[in-house]
Amino acid sequence: MTREAFERDLHQLQDDIVAMGWRAGQAIHRAVEALQTRDVALAEQVIREDDAIDAIHLELEQRCMRLLATQQPMAGDLRAIASVFAITIDLERMADHAEGISRAAKRLGSVPPVKPLVDIPQMESRIQEMLRETLEAFRTHDANRAGRAAKMDDVVDELRSRVLHDLLDIMIKDPQTVPRALELLIVARHLERAADHLTNVDERIVYMVTGEMRELNV
Amino acid sequence: MTREAFERDLHQLQDDIVAMGWRAGQAIHRAVEALQTRDVALAEQVIREDDAIDAIHLELEQRCMRLLATQQPMAGDLRAIASVFAITIDLERMADHAEGISRAAKRLGSVPPVKPLVDIPQMESRIQEMLRETLEAFRTHDANRAGRAAKMDDVVDELRSRVLHDLLDIMIKDPQTVPRALELLIVARHLERAADHLTNVDERIVYMVTGEMRELNV
Repeated sequence: MTREAFERDLHQLQDDIVAMGWRAGQAIHRAVEALQTRDVALAEQVIREDDAIDAIHLELEQRCMRLLATQQPMAGDLRAIASVFAITIDLERMADHAEGISRAAKRLGSVPPVKPLVDIPQMESRIQEMLRETLEAFRTHDANRAGRAAKMDDVVDELRSRVLHDLLDIMIKDPQTVPRALELLIVARHLERAADHLTNVDERIVYMVTGEMRELNV
Repeated sequence: MTREAFERDLHQLQDDIVAMGWRAGQAIHRAVEALQTRDVALAEQVIREDDAIDAIHLELEQRCMRLLATQQPMAGDLRAIASVFAITIDLERMADHAEGISRAAKRLGSVPPVKPLVDIPQMESRIQEMLRETLEAFRTHDANRAGRAAKMDDVVDELRSRVLHDLLDIMIKDPQTVPRALELLIVARHLERAADHLTNVDERIVYMVTGEMRELNV
């Protein structure tokens, strides 16, 4: 394999990671939409489509392995390929959380809501912002931008605490709400974890660019 | 690199994964011990030692990359190396949860306990059992054993629900307990996630042995 072919394949892999990231983000968006609009059919669609994201993950992983095996890559190439390998795992797991949210949306589809959703949609839009910045940082090899994207996880965590405390209040006042409130806690946890996966991606970007693995946002 | 040298390096990598797994398990064990015995010094030690596990992770990852780059591996080799690469990420994150538990143990060290700990130590011992089976399945390339290990995650999830419901009862009866009860919820969540990482490892073992990526225990 020539150096040019190697670089073309590596760039293609990197473009495909960005496309996979958008797709995982869309899954999260539609899962929260299904929850908000009580649209069980949409929730089911998100659940079904997770298989496609799993397949993309495995395909990207195999291409990383083959690319490593076909030529003597340099140190920076190794880090770049290792990063694609690791990032595709985190994006796949991020999409799994979309599936988890959709399952909760299905369970809540037939029962009256415990409260209007405010912070959960807020969490979702912060995640989309974090995803946008993360994918841009990856595309442009910008470690500082990845660091800033990881900081957005704080806002997601704060919103999640607010959801937890609000729901605790509701449950304490009316224990009958417990089963439904627990479902919303599950949703908030899935969103928090989706953001954690993006933080992992940001750590990888910093590593890819600088060669330093730092814990961002501990 | 000769085939013999390649195989020797691959086996060494696999042995080192098992050693890393034991170390991550020890970290979880000592974190829960610190919580139970209210031993803040032990909690601090677990937190400090997490850096060593992070370093092992990166070193294993680099060895995987170099091994892939030094010879034309066969399909089974690619899967074996990809598995080491992915498993070391999950073990490192499992150890991060030991750090999280230790931080909660530190915060709880100076306040009276809300309840005697029963289910949390139970979760921990189920995780140790799951870890043992998982590492044995990895060492012996036994996909069935990995599948059985992943099933143990159900017990951990059940115990975690029990912790959640018990603590909710306590909080509903006496809202003053909320801050301390939330810390225990955090601990239970860390343990649940540690077990999830082991389930990921089990999925990888199945993939390594069979070439099929299946979601175990959805």
